[in-house]
Amino acid sequence: MATLVLLRHGESVWNAKGLFTGWVDVDLSEKGEQEARTGGRLLAEAGFTPDVVYTSTLKRAIRTANLALETADLLWLPVRRSWRLNERHYGALQGKDKAQTRAEFGDEQFMIWRRSYDTPPPPLADDDRYSQVGDPRYAHLPQEIVPRTECLADVVVRLLPYWYDQIVPELSAGRTVLVAAHGNSLRALVKHLDGVSDTEIAGLNIPTGIPLVYDLADDFTPRKPGGEYLDPQAAAAAIEAVKNQGKK
Amino acid sequence: MATLVLLRHGESVWNAKGLFTGWVDVDLSEKGEQEARTGGRLLAEAGFTPDVVYTSTLKRAIRTANLALETADLLWLPVRRSWRLNERHYGALQGKDKAQTRAEFGDEQFMIWRRSYDTPPPPLADDDRYSQVGDPRYAHLPQEIVPRTECLADVVVRLLPYWYDQIVPELSAGRTVLVAAHGNSLRALVKHLDGVSDTEIAGLNIPTGIPLVYDLADDFTPRKPGGEYLDPQAAAAAIEAVKNQGKK
Repeated sequence: MATLVLLRHGESVWNAKGLFTGWVDVDLSEKGEQEARTGGRLLAEAGFTPDVVYTSTLKRAIRTANLALETADLLWLPVRRSWRLNERHYGALQGKDKAQTRAEFGDEQFMIWRRSYDTPPPPLADDDRYSQVGDPRYAHLPQEIVPRTECLADVVVRLLPYWYDQIVPELSAGRTVLVAAHGNSLRALVKHLDGVSDTEIAGLNIPTGIPLVYDLADDFTPRKPGGEYLDPQAAAAAIEAVKNQGKK
Repeated sequence: MATLVLLRHGESVWNAKGLFTGWVDVDLSEKGEQEARTGGRLLAEAGFTPDVVYTSTLKRAIRTANLALETADLLWLPVRRSWRLNERHYGALQGKDKAQTRAEFGDEQFMIWRRSYDTPPPPLADDDRYSQVGDPRYAHLPQEIVPRTECLADVVVRLLPYWYDQIVPELSAGRTVLVAAHGNSLRALVKHLDGVSDTEIAGLNIPTGIPLVYDLADDFTPRKPGGEYLDPQAAAAAIEAVKNQGKK
């Protein structure tokens, strides 16, 4: 029996502006910082003390973890970072306005890019200003591993090795694990945990800053499918808001 | 050939108040936060990109690392924490006013407690409000290992296993290592690196927030004894100020 707590980063500056972000290393907005602190308060109030914390290598997830842990007085926890927890790479859409993209390409194409399981956006050119080529944080990876675009299926494929090799052994030892990551890397994980189908995952949204707690059985399946949000009412309201993104 | 960068945390709330702190988990003051950001700016300006970051388990060192890395846009770096990098445990002096302690016990006793190599202050009682007994961050340690007081010699003894087993292998692999820690844990490390004698170490002070860079030879001895501060002028001024602590 182990406990897994998922925390999606608070609003970023580009979330607020309605831009596709992906692997662009955008910071939290002030509202996002506040959401991160709220996440920490909810953790503390519920009496959760994780044993280990995982983050992506993107600052909006790292700062969300830092602010939440600071609020819960848990900054001393061991923390590990991996690009495998990064947001889905949004390809050539990175830096583009969501509403404008929707208007330009139409509702259907827009929803395929945002929510289809296996159709990635067009790849980002290596000389694009938002390319990750040359970024020191990915310098140790063979360049063919660094994505130029990703669909959610790609995220599942690159995330699961980290899940199995790094996170499951901690859960297996009975430790409580906190993962601070992104809308789509957490959707990929939830898809795996709950066995959500390739079509049903399109309708699943995870709100920012509200810890989602999974009690896991010995085979790492959730005791309660979908887990439980520490603030279910706020989560329900936020899920609605995510669904309406890009509608202007 | 490897590079080691030492960073003493910025001013804490209790530094500002002139209280002995030790293992009490006091936060940075606003000035301390600024010093941490300055440390990050100096790192970035000097073009240092550490490969791995070490901190103690105390928030003033962790937040110093976080603020410095945020300023240098290096939050994504891997980070490891250990109680072995903690400040010297100040025993029964923890929470006491430095100037008042000096007045009460006299200059000689005060300087022995602050600077003698092998005389620890009286131990902290386990039922003291500042005791570490029951603190979850030390719960995995046998209680006889958690110090009740320490002299600098004790810090050297508990720090060196971490140095040899965790930090040296990284340096040995040619990685640049950043250690964000405390006045006395860094003095202990510098004593070891530079082969400072038990008596001479009394006069060695490390300023807050100014990165101290050691280029190490293959045998991990400093190529330049004492290393080099990234802002030597500010370091010299700050060292003078530390010497005068407790003089009112």
